[in-house]
Amino acid sequence: MAEPKKIVVLGGGYAGITAALKLQKQLARGEADVTLVNKHDYHYFTTQLHKPAAGTGSPDHARVGIRDILNPRRVAVLKRTVEKIDPAGKKVLTDEGDIPYDVLIVALGGEPETFGIPGLTEHALFIRSLSSVRYIREHIKYQFALFKQDEDRTERLTFVVGGAGLTGIEFVGELVNRIPELCRYHDVDPALVNIFVVEAAPAALPGFDADLVDYAVDLLRRKGVVFKLGIPVKKCTSEGVEIGDGEFIRAGTVIWAGGVRGSRVLEASGFETTRGRVVVNPYLQAPGHGEIFVIGDSSIVLNDQGKPYPPSAQIAIQQGEAAARNAIALLRGREMAPFKYFYRGTVASLGKGEAIGSVGKYKVKGAKAAILKKIVDGRYLFKIGGVRLLIRKMAFFS
Amino acid sequence: MAEPKKIVVLGGGYAGITAALKLQKQLARGEADVTLVNKHDYHYFTTQLHKPAAGTGSPDHARVGIRDILNPRRVAVLKRTVEKIDPAGKKVLTDEGDIPYDVLIVALGGEPETFGIPGLTEHALFIRSLSSVRYIREHIKYQFALFKQDEDRTERLTFVVGGAGLTGIEFVGELVNRIPELCRYHDVDPALVNIFVVEAAPAALPGFDADLVDYAVDLLRRKGVVFKLGIPVKKCTSEGVEIGDGEFIRAGTVIWAGGVRGSRVLEASGFETTRGRVVVNPYLQAPGHGEIFVIGDSSIVLNDQGKPYPPSAQIAIQQGEAAARNAIALLRGREMAPFKYFYRGTVASLGKGEAIGSVGKYKVKGAKAAILKKIVDGRYLFKIGGVRLLIRKMAFFS
Repeated sequence: MAEPKKIVVLGGGYAGITAALKLQKQLARGEADVTLVNKHDYHYFTTQLHKPAAGTGSPDHARVGIRDILNPRRVAVLKRTVEKIDPAGKKVLTDEGDIPYDVLIVALGGEPETFGIPGLTEHALFIRSLSSVRYIREHIKYQFALFKQDEDRTERLTFVVGGAGLTGIEFVGELVNRIPELCRYHDVDPALVNIFVVEAAPAALPGFDADLVDYAVDLLRRKGVVFKLGIPVKKCTSEGVEIGDGEFIRAGTVIWAGGVRGSRVLEASGFETTRGRVVVNPYLQAPGHGEIFVIGDSSIVLNDQGKPYPPSAQIAIQQGEAAARNAIALLRGREMAPFKYFYRGTVASLGKGEAIGSVGKYKVKGAKAAILKKIVDGRYLFKIGGVRLLIRKMAFFS
Repeated sequence: MAEPKKIVVLGGGYAGITAALKLQKQLARGEADVTLVNKHDYHYFTTQLHKPAAGTGSPDHARVGIRDILNPRRVAVLKRTVEKIDPAGKKVLTDEGDIPYDVLIVALGGEPETFGIPGLTEHALFIRSLSSVRYIREHIKYQFALFKQDEDRTERLTFVVGGAGLTGIEFVGELVNRIPELCRYHDVDPALVNIFVVEAAPAALPGFDADLVDYAVDLLRRKGVVFKLGIPVKKCTSEGVEIGDGEFIRAGTVIWAGGVRGSRVLEASGFETTRGRVVVNPYLQAPGHGEIFVIGDSSIVLNDQGKPYPPSAQIAIQQGEAAARNAIALLRGREMAPFKYFYRGTVASLGKGEAIGSVGKYKVKGAKAAILKKIVDGRYLFKIGGVRLLIRKMAFFS
């Protein structure tokens, strides 16, 4: 009997975990060796990181051990950092040695895109990983503690969020809920706290209908957030940010949520990329490499009009399933199916009990949308971890 | 009828609160106007600050609103910062105007004593107030979060405590309990964390018997603490501390618990002081000012051998009662009583479930001493706030 083929999945985010789970379910025992390579031994909910970042949720609730999702007898999990892919040698180079593959599913996720704005990399904070959001959470609290050591330094209590997309707005939604708690705890007058959202585009929350966007912006404005729309961030320093109208906002905390690009591993491996993303074919394969599928934030899928779908957890999950099905088809010598994205709608949370959502022709806001958000999040938990995970983590999503 | 005499108490620490409480209980209605002047509208448990500083207890549990202790119809409470005392004009100068007095009880507490060691004031952290321990707590957590952003900087995980007296050792006892929690939360290898205690004196915990000191030091050593005894801190910088043997310990956190001096207000007001402390007469009066009592950390009481008693909460509380009694005697034209200190013993906590204590001829260690510590702390809570406060705060002391 021939040695079983090796399917290697790189990355344990939404796309990678879904692909590994699908492979585990659909492959016959012994049909192939499946390996998931991930930097951590846990999977985390990227779309939920705004909560632990603001401090309204525990970082531990935003992650689940990969061992709680995948069956160790069906999928080998290697805790390693991927450094490069060698498509010619059909192997993956990691910090702890090479991993050979027959079929590769690349789901290495995204990285913050700073668009070359000076100082952002050095001075801004990014909502990107569990370690980064624990850092933001501690940093915010530290500003309050520092302020109390020198109450002239009111800029410690100024928070600038760059980017009014989903991540930026959801973070601000949590932050406005968190500030009163921090003020109470540190004996700080809430009137001294300032929150700015700076966005180069003329409107917040692209992709949502104007009336929902208005609802969200009005709600956050009433809670004290100052929006600077149509104004780009020009520069970031250790003192704050310079913005397009020449103003300098002194701030102890600058969070950059202005964009996501693909993984640098793909560029380093010689793939042709646009902002680190590989434009895949309809089967999600990398051009010229039939045995390599690229999915999630590191991929670009074009719609029928030839325009890229924006990256999201939703498309990543659907790509994960499709890539696993196609990888199995490839292995079995059967016909692959082209990827078809079903857009189910989007919900943006705006803090506890508040959200906006657009699902098909329905638009919802307020408490109803917040419930919808819970259902969406709950579905994913159920999908990857069944009822047990749903119950364990549900509190976090409430 | 003559206007009632004004008794003013400065400071709401152990000494001041006890004095105000005693005045409230012993004065007849309308006999005198009693005013307590304090920087905050709460009283805090100075001897418990090591817990919120390390993060093993909540800062809010270490304080109680003054309104929960004193009756507003019997004692007026002014939230002000005392700037100077004018003994000739019989008034107190504050940040919000002058306060006249007929009898003054000064209980302004202590400040950290840095003995002129360069850099301590700028770079070390001090366990001295609620705001300072909230800062230490956040600072420690921040070091773990910072370390995860750059894991080469292992000095972020090094903690130096200067001073192996009661405060330093009790803080270290909490810190060793806290570190494993922080490591788990931040995914940090506990083996990377270092805790040093640097003490100029040849032994830790002066005032305790050698076998109790050995027990405490051995216990903390087994938990990973490195003791540098008989070695003074020479210099503190933003990078760490230089110590007596020429070694430089790189550390993200330096806590100075090396000593306490009296309040600078006393020097500024022209009193003769030794390290900010006024040597009082047997009635606790300041030399040459029969109407001014000085108590607590800002006072020095000499024992029968002419040596000063070390400052402690215990002596402060007893002084508070004695000063109130003598202030009333003065008012009524009766004879005052000389202050007599009853030393009841000392208990030092060493983290959860561990302590050492010496009470009369009894010496206790381990769990038994930890229970004794709870009884001591509970007695004080009961004294100032009755059963209600005891129940509300007891969890903190467990």
